[in-house]
Amino acid sequence: MTEPESFSLETEVLVVGAGYAGLTAAACLAERGTSVVVLEAADRVGGRVLSEVRPSGVRIDHGGQWIGPTQRRFRALAERFGCRTFPTWETGRNAEIWHDGTRLDYTGALPPSGPGAGEYERITALLDDLARTVDLERPWATPRFAELDRWSAEEFFRAETSDEAVLRRLSLAVQGVWCAEPREISFFHVLFYVASAGGYEQLMETRGCAQDARFSSGADAVARALARQLGERVRLGAPVLSMRQDARGVEARTERGVVRARRAIVAVPPAVVERIAFDPPLPADRLGWLRHNPMGRVAKVHAVYEEPFWRAAGQSGIATLYGENPVGVVFDNSPQDASRGVLVAFVYADRLDRWAALGAGDRRRAVLAALSEVVGERALRPLDYAEMIWPRTGWTAGGYECFATPGGWAGHGRAGWRAPTGRIHWAGTETASVWNGYIDGAISSGERAAAEVAARREAAGQLR
Amino acid sequence: MTEPESFSLETEVLVVGAGYAGLTAAACLAERGTSVVVLEAADRVGGRVLSEVRPSGVRIDHGGQWIGPTQRRFRALAERFGCRTFPTWETGRNAEIWHDGTRLDYTGALPPSGPGAGEYERITALLDDLARTVDLERPWATPRFAELDRWSAEEFFRAETSDEAVLRRLSLAVQGVWCAEPREISFFHVLFYVASAGGYEQLMETRGCAQDARFSSGADAVARALARQLGERVRLGAPVLSMRQDARGVEARTERGVVRARRAIVAVPPAVVERIAFDPPLPADRLGWLRHNPMGRVAKVHAVYEEPFWRAAGQSGIATLYGENPVGVVFDNSPQDASRGVLVAFVYADRLDRWAALGAGDRRRAVLAALSEVVGERALRPLDYAEMIWPRTGWTAGGYECFATPGGWAGHGRAGWRAPTGRIHWAGTETASVWNGYIDGAISSGERAAAEVAARREAAGQLR
Repeated sequence: MTEPESFSLETEVLVVGAGYAGLTAAACLAERGTSVVVLEAADRVGGRVLSEVRPSGVRIDHGGQWIGPTQRRFRALAERFGCRTFPTWETGRNAEIWHDGTRLDYTGALPPSGPGAGEYERITALLDDLARTVDLERPWATPRFAELDRWSAEEFFRAETSDEAVLRRLSLAVQGVWCAEPREISFFHVLFYVASAGGYEQLMETRGCAQDARFSSGADAVARALARQLGERVRLGAPVLSMRQDARGVEARTERGVVRARRAIVAVPPAVVERIAFDPPLPADRLGWLRHNPMGRVAKVHAVYEEPFWRAAGQSGIATLYGENPVGVVFDNSPQDASRGVLVAFVYADRLDRWAALGAGDRRRAVLAALSEVVGERALRPLDYAEMIWPRTGWTAGGYECFATPGGWAGHGRAGWRAPTGRIHWAGTETASVWNGYIDGAISSGERAAAEVAARREAAGQLR
Repeated sequence: MTEPESFSLETEVLVVGAGYAGLTAAACLAERGTSVVVLEAADRVGGRVLSEVRPSGVRIDHGGQWIGPTQRRFRALAERFGCRTFPTWETGRNAEIWHDGTRLDYTGALPPSGPGAGEYERITALLDDLARTVDLERPWATPRFAELDRWSAEEFFRAETSDEAVLRRLSLAVQGVWCAEPREISFFHVLFYVASAGGYEQLMETRGCAQDARFSSGADAVARALARQLGERVRLGAPVLSMRQDARGVEARTERGVVRARRAIVAVPPAVVERIAFDPPLPADRLGWLRHNPMGRVAKVHAVYEEPFWRAAGQSGIATLYGENPVGVVFDNSPQDASRGVLVAFVYADRLDRWAALGAGDRRRAVLAALSEVVGERALRPLDYAEMIWPRTGWTAGGYECFATPGGWAGHGRAGWRAPTGRIHWAGTETASVWNGYIDGAISSGERAAAEVAARREAAGQLR
């Protein structure tokens, strides 16, 4: 069963992972004349960003899909490769559907009223106030750092309110942004992340915010363009099994071959770093950090229809669902020309666990029933139906990103978050100070890691 | 830097991991004449059970240390190898120390009074009642399975009481048994585990229960005896990097060589299974299960004194601490002959995160201060002081064991808990129905996995 090793490469810098972080790091290094090899476990680039043209001819994004106006690194890269975007559809009435079946239709950014809306706004304003105290480059220098990191988001919310409607709103917000339950996530991490995005509204809203626009050719178009530019430097289907470092360099082994480099950039999510056997072992704080950074749990489900029939009825297709059904949030993901109608349903965290345990038929029925609550019973008969259950994918272990659990930042952040481990540098959106968790953060993390490597190599007089 | 491969082995069964589970599985197979190879990542056997003779001459157990009378598989194995035990010291007054400094001294099993003691007993009796409904072999057949698994232990406790003292008692119980916070653990998992041990008292108490006795030669003495019996079948320092299976067998690769086998038993904790690259990838439910099974977080700290001076003062050395200091539970871990006095302090979960982030001097001062609260200021001047921070050890990722988070059992338990994956079988205490999480459960899991393999091989007409 063993195949002979098919490559044995020497390079200046090895990059592990061909998501946006790894590809950006490799491109930065290649552009300054540094030799680089990228090893990617999967048989494609893009990581948690993946688009597919369905048999119906519609291109859908199974993973990350949006770009916002303040995501300037992502914008610059998209512009460089001529990847066009178009505004997320948000014309018409949005819907809130409550666990008791109550439906509230509204227009504009936030529901102006509805159960617990005022108290929800008070608490999210408090999040913004606290987020303004966060030091994004040195989070451990934030006032009351350790204290804030002891709380789960749930503990903070329950200390602020006992109103169940407010708690449901806050829970869905946490689910929607971190694909986790409030009990799981560090309250400091919530504040860090809010600060990293530039405010709570940036995380939640569409126009002018993180969900502003989509890509005509899929959100992985920029990654594919980067990979084309890197050419044969990128090797797919090559999971790194082990990395060994000593005073001279780093050696990575795969089933197909070996790469030796001066330095390495590991650009994979914290949740899968330990799939690589490190020699010497990773230091204690890096291990501690990894063990406090599980991956979020999300599925995206697309239903394709002849046309976006809800638009004619004055509905936007945007909905938030607080009920027992699996779906938390719905968006209109139709192509820009509206040649088909597409709804995307997000299934998060605990609700994902329960839904994923069902058989395929029951999963489909449950999602379509939720969509029919939003846009009517035509939703029950799609032309095409496609699920992407991210925790079931092998190489990324979930989505959208890893989040810190209580105690992770205070216990291990300073030494474990992104500090280099000898000749191994760390990239990935989870290491970003700005737009942490987003494609933009992945890109800046790749730039930062490439700069770290370049600085070390200049210091060593080895840079051309 | 690459060393040449030093072995290329063919065997009937490959076992990955030389903790109690793997060693037992290998011994069962070897005893029935099946050829077996055991690959162990660390340079020793025993996994989460590890004893050390300190310079002071005292042998301490850094990991699992106790045996109880109903742990019959562990007892049988210990008797077979002549490993002697002696009763855990529990003579004298125990202490409860509260967050406000209140100290309550008591004798006997449970504190007869004290803050919230009555309500605590009511709720733990309820746990026993609910645990009696658990189906240990087919947990998914338990009445109200999915409903119970949606709750965290925290949610259940808070639905039962709002008394802070009761909640502190329940939290320390969860920390002491699972090395986790109540918000982290599935309530169904708590019930399953209580049932698996034979009742809540079994988990909590000393005499007649899980903490009944200790080993004269360390709790890993039995593992070392098993390893001696297996001889050269056990290969240390050989982390498995990848496992590939097809219709004919399984091939495992390490840095030092390759093992080919008909079948494999993977006997490592769920939290580290994914360090192995599986080809084909693990099935969705196995991945889902693994991602709902983080490892507990615990440190054991030993302080050695000239003598067990607290005994003369009528104190048992057993204490539970509800305060802000790092220590949750203290036991007298002196050698049987009392030639030295030894206290062991347990640091759990969130308190461990905070404590582990301190420098070595601050960590020591904090633990010794807590011990001095228990037995007086002589505790501040030990002869010897030894920490084992389990989440900082590379190969086991924490301790005592992995626990299921909410939704894990209902979402993925049926197909993901311990069902074989083709030719790969799963062992480890986390797969046990009886004494799950304990050494006894590890042993029974090894027996069960060996029996699974033997049955498959008989069915295939391949067993000698």
